[in-house]
Amino acid sequence: MRETNRKFLLANRPDGKPDRDTFELAEEDVPEPGPGEVLVRTRYLSVDPYMRGRMDARESYAEPWEVGEPLRAGVVGEVVDSNGADFEAGDLVTGNLQWADYATARGSQLQPVNPDLGPVSTALGVLGMPGRTAYFGTREVAQPKAGDTFVVTGAAGAVGSVAGQIAKLSGARVVGFAGSDEKVAFLEDDLGFDAGINYKETDDYRGALDEAAPGGVDSYFDNVGGPITDAVFSKLNVDARVAVCGQISLYNAEEIPTGPRKLPKLIESRARVEGFLVGDFAPRFEEATRKLAEWVESGDVQYRETVTEGLENAPDAFLGLFEGENVGKQLVAVGDSEE
Amino acid sequence: MRETNRKFLLANRPDGKPDRDTFELAEEDVPEPGPGEVLVRTRYLSVDPYMRGRMDARESYAEPWEVGEPLRAGVVGEVVDSNGADFEAGDLVTGNLQWADYATARGSQLQPVNPDLGPVSTALGVLGMPGRTAYFGTREVAQPKAGDTFVVTGAAGAVGSVAGQIAKLSGARVVGFAGSDEKVAFLEDDLGFDAGINYKETDDYRGALDEAAPGGVDSYFDNVGGPITDAVFSKLNVDARVAVCGQISLYNAEEIPTGPRKLPKLIESRARVEGFLVGDFAPRFEEATRKLAEWVESGDVQYRETVTEGLENAPDAFLGLFEGENVGKQLVAVGDSEE
Repeated sequence: MRETNRKFLLANRPDGKPDRDTFELAEEDVPEPGPGEVLVRTRYLSVDPYMRGRMDARESYAEPWEVGEPLRAGVVGEVVDSNGADFEAGDLVTGNLQWADYATARGSQLQPVNPDLGPVSTALGVLGMPGRTAYFGTREVAQPKAGDTFVVTGAAGAVGSVAGQIAKLSGARVVGFAGSDEKVAFLEDDLGFDAGINYKETDDYRGALDEAAPGGVDSYFDNVGGPITDAVFSKLNVDARVAVCGQISLYNAEEIPTGPRKLPKLIESRARVEGFLVGDFAPRFEEATRKLAEWVESGDVQYRETVTEGLENAPDAFLGLFEGENVGKQLVAVGDSEE
Repeated sequence: MRETNRKFLLANRPDGKPDRDTFELAEEDVPEPGPGEVLVRTRYLSVDPYMRGRMDARESYAEPWEVGEPLRAGVVGEVVDSNGADFEAGDLVTGNLQWADYATARGSQLQPVNPDLGPVSTALGVLGMPGRTAYFGTREVAQPKAGDTFVVTGAAGAVGSVAGQIAKLSGARVVGFAGSDEKVAFLEDDLGFDAGINYKETDDYRGALDEAAPGGVDSYFDNVGGPITDAVFSKLNVDARVAVCGQISLYNAEEIPTGPRKLPKLIESRARVEGFLVGDFAPRFEEATRKLAEWVESGDVQYRETVTEGLENAPDAFLGLFEGENVGKQLVAVGDSEE
């Protein structure tokens, strides 16, 4: 066990794109768990696009992080000390903790991780928040049906890759936008997508869709926004459903992003566009985890992880999300190599 | 009966705003009804914003009108000759006919007008397509509930004025945008809206809404689009519903209109935005007409009509829609004065 604890603080609020200077690595003594608390040693830390929003002062659905305060993330770790909480040393847990080697937490902030379901890292990916986001966003909001054409952006990412496979299970034709030929090959060859479009190789997204989705788009799962979404909207069929999950292409904008107005298209297509947050489905998380675990077990849902080694590299892992450097779930492995 | 029939043709496709030269008034002999047809003498002609779309070559939900061909409109008229159709001379009918003094139609193109329900002109307004649009768009799409704040644009128009009153019947706080102090007084004093905003007296729509809808917006019925809609979106509450009925502020745009991107706001608010066309509710038209007639009878729904006299003035009546010259339903009275 380390004698000091490292943790990242928000050094300042980024204007536009964050960079390494947005993060400050602080050291402190390893904290002691208070009454009813445990001490958790981080094994994996999750970096996710939504975190960008918490760096701004503006109140949105997630409370802003304060400058000088620790950043928080989904963590999988091991209980190393317990002070009367419902967990004991050796338990594997997950929860929203700090970007740190160690963190204290009340028992009520943690859920147990079942290592029988798969590698513990999947509790932050396909069997965790990103998998559940794909599950509810696809089934409850985008609602692909047999014979539909389903489009997903950020298709090789943690959420998009699972969303596309769930749509495939519904019998839809599945088209994904991703940012490299390697990712497109991953979609088509490994995940069974009907077509992948490398958006970095063209800016004629509409033309690419004319080819990949010749019958138009019935169901759209959007993680990205911006000009790709404009092209997808131009192809929406009558009664299409759009699930707005994320808009990563806009998160670093320094001014309010503008684009073509879309409401006229919605009249013509009678399309429904709906934003959602996975947290609203909390009462059904168990159902999602169970179904996802079954699909992983049966091979119907494949997943991939991109693992960055070392807590000290967590900022790079986070910044890489905006460059599309990850395939599948982006994780940071913490601590193992230092023992 | 006139000896010649006047009818308006589409003279050319407008670039941007149509004007008088968009229309050509042609004369012909009064047509004879063919087998299974009737001859209808127009009493009232409806001009509606959606007609602007049909003047463009672009296929949308309504087929484009052809240059040189007659314009079409909702008409209330009287059967003056029948050639084996299910109607006889003297019957009052409504249907989609020409902008003309007389038009032939098959019986299947017409519905009877029941003069016991109200003045026959209401078959083109509160008891016709605009009333039904308000009915389904409000109840099925925007879904205001007791305690909600409901906002409607084009609030003094044929659709908006009825939508606001239906929302009021649901127990919502109702706020309407309209284009003159006279219209705002109509909303507040005659229709029972909680607040009206004269959008021609301010461009701080957001500030006006902060006052009129201090608790945010739960349900929005949009006939107008553009910057007013941007302001309403900025105020959407969690789980808000937006019914996209029309976008009249954009119909004459010469380039693709742009504005702030709205999808990020939909994530935060989990709002649902849905376009609709009244025609999709055709199996339920009778229900709507019956309810609307009851509400008109009980005084729960008030309506107003702006009547332009003379077929020759129909283009001005249509063009006036885009200047907000009408209060309530804009009609053209045809023929009466010439007999």
